[in-house]
Amino acid sequence: MDTYKFTVEPFTEDVTGRLSWSVLGNHLLRVANLSASSHHFGFSDMQTAKHAWVLSRLVIEMYDMPRTGECYDITTWVSKIYRQFTDRLFSIKKPDGSAYGHAYSIWALIDLDTRMPADLQHLPNGSFHDAVETQVIPIDGPSRIRVKTDGAVRDTHAMYGDLDINGHVNSIRYLQMALDTIYQQYPDDLKPLMSRVRRVEMTYSAESYFGDHLQFFIEKQSHQKYACEIKKPNAESVVKCLIDFFPAK
Amino acid sequence: MDTYKFTVEPFTEDVTGRLSWSVLGNHLLRVANLSASSHHFGFSDMQTAKHAWVLSRLVIEMYDMPRTGECYDITTWVSKIYRQFTDRLFSIKKPDGSAYGHAYSIWALIDLDTRMPADLQHLPNGSFHDAVETQVIPIDGPSRIRVKTDGAVRDTHAMYGDLDINGHVNSIRYLQMALDTIYQQYPDDLKPLMSRVRRVEMTYSAESYFGDHLQFFIEKQSHQKYACEIKKPNAESVVKCLIDFFPAK
Repeated sequence: MDTYKFTVEPFTEDVTGRLSWSVLGNHLLRVANLSASSHHFGFSDMQTAKHAWVLSRLVIEMYDMPRTGECYDITTWVSKIYRQFTDRLFSIKKPDGSAYGHAYSIWALIDLDTRMPADLQHLPNGSFHDAVETQVIPIDGPSRIRVKTDGAVRDTHAMYGDLDINGHVNSIRYLQMALDTIYQQYPDDLKPLMSRVRRVEMTYSAESYFGDHLQFFIEKQSHQKYACEIKKPNAESVVKCLIDFFPAK
Repeated sequence: MDTYKFTVEPFTEDVTGRLSWSVLGNHLLRVANLSASSHHFGFSDMQTAKHAWVLSRLVIEMYDMPRTGECYDITTWVSKIYRQFTDRLFSIKKPDGSAYGHAYSIWALIDLDTRMPADLQHLPNGSFHDAVETQVIPIDGPSRIRVKTDGAVRDTHAMYGDLDINGHVNSIRYLQMALDTIYQQYPDDLKPLMSRVRRVEMTYSAESYFGDHLQFFIEKQSHQKYACEIKKPNAESVVKCLIDFFPAK
């Protein structure tokens, strides 16, 4: 298990004065890479072997979010290796060791030549089985997200600032887009105090690129739970999200 | 003069693999506040006195941008105090002391009760004249930005993720919005290699808030220079930007 220390820096908060979900999400991706690299299976190790890690699922559940100036640790470890996927878990903790929350991610390793997933049980130069830690986290894993809606509530295009170093829309950027769209569609439900997010689930299906037309579909499942699907106009699903809010006070 | 050290963290780069303008811009705001606070005139000191610093102009000119893992320092100092405004300068440097670039900002101090600017020459509990350093930077100061256009090229609304802890759209977020809109409008000019930004000028006129309708006006002044104005539908100007790109290679 690897632990990384962070402090909430000013201008990384959201409107509620707490660490933004975007910054937290990107920190999770960062420690995933740092930890994998320390065991020689990080992004750059894989690039050398013409493979790339692809995020398939991400679940983050937070009991609380640190505020400006507060410190938090992220501990991460690989918990399982399947044939085509591997599970990486995260605990986000206060300096006193109590949990701010936990996160669950599922990754595939894609062969950059064939675009096919690698067999994680039989990697060429050994594997990363020695990195597996069996410890579990006390949150539910990913569910099957279904978004029943009539039509798109928002049309936009993937923009310059949405792109990561690989030219794809950044994985966490979709979460920000989904949150923005949900707050925009349900301001009366959510604007009071900018109701806080408790749990997010993301299912990634396809990449999007600069200029891609993105359509947003929202289903309000309850006053506290909203589902969002982002599709391309050919109906290809890019990502589905399920967002749970804390009950309004 | 106060110097703060930074490292470009993964997931803070833009698509070119260099520190994003958003992250750089927010780091400038952060060191402005850190430096002011160390001289007892930071945001929280002013809040106690029922005043708030308001950013009026921002110019950033970069000869180069640090890449992932590279370190940079930001040195900042107050260079002038006028009646209603104060100038704060910044140098962004490599570890060897050479400049990545420089920045120039102009701030007003608003009385939160009257909404009027304070007289910076005669502040109640003394002033921050002892913090003034006369050193200059080798970039042009702000110019008068004029944006001649026919109509809005983009309509959007201020969204949840655009907001800062005060409930305003974050000052640097407007820069990202302007860049996004310029890249979106001129993809053929700018998409090759995602042409890099050399200099930005921002003139802030009004705040915007959650849900505010924002209209974007763009004037292409040359293949390398684009102006953008963001207005509310009542024609109130929120911000004007002038963006210079490096010549295409």
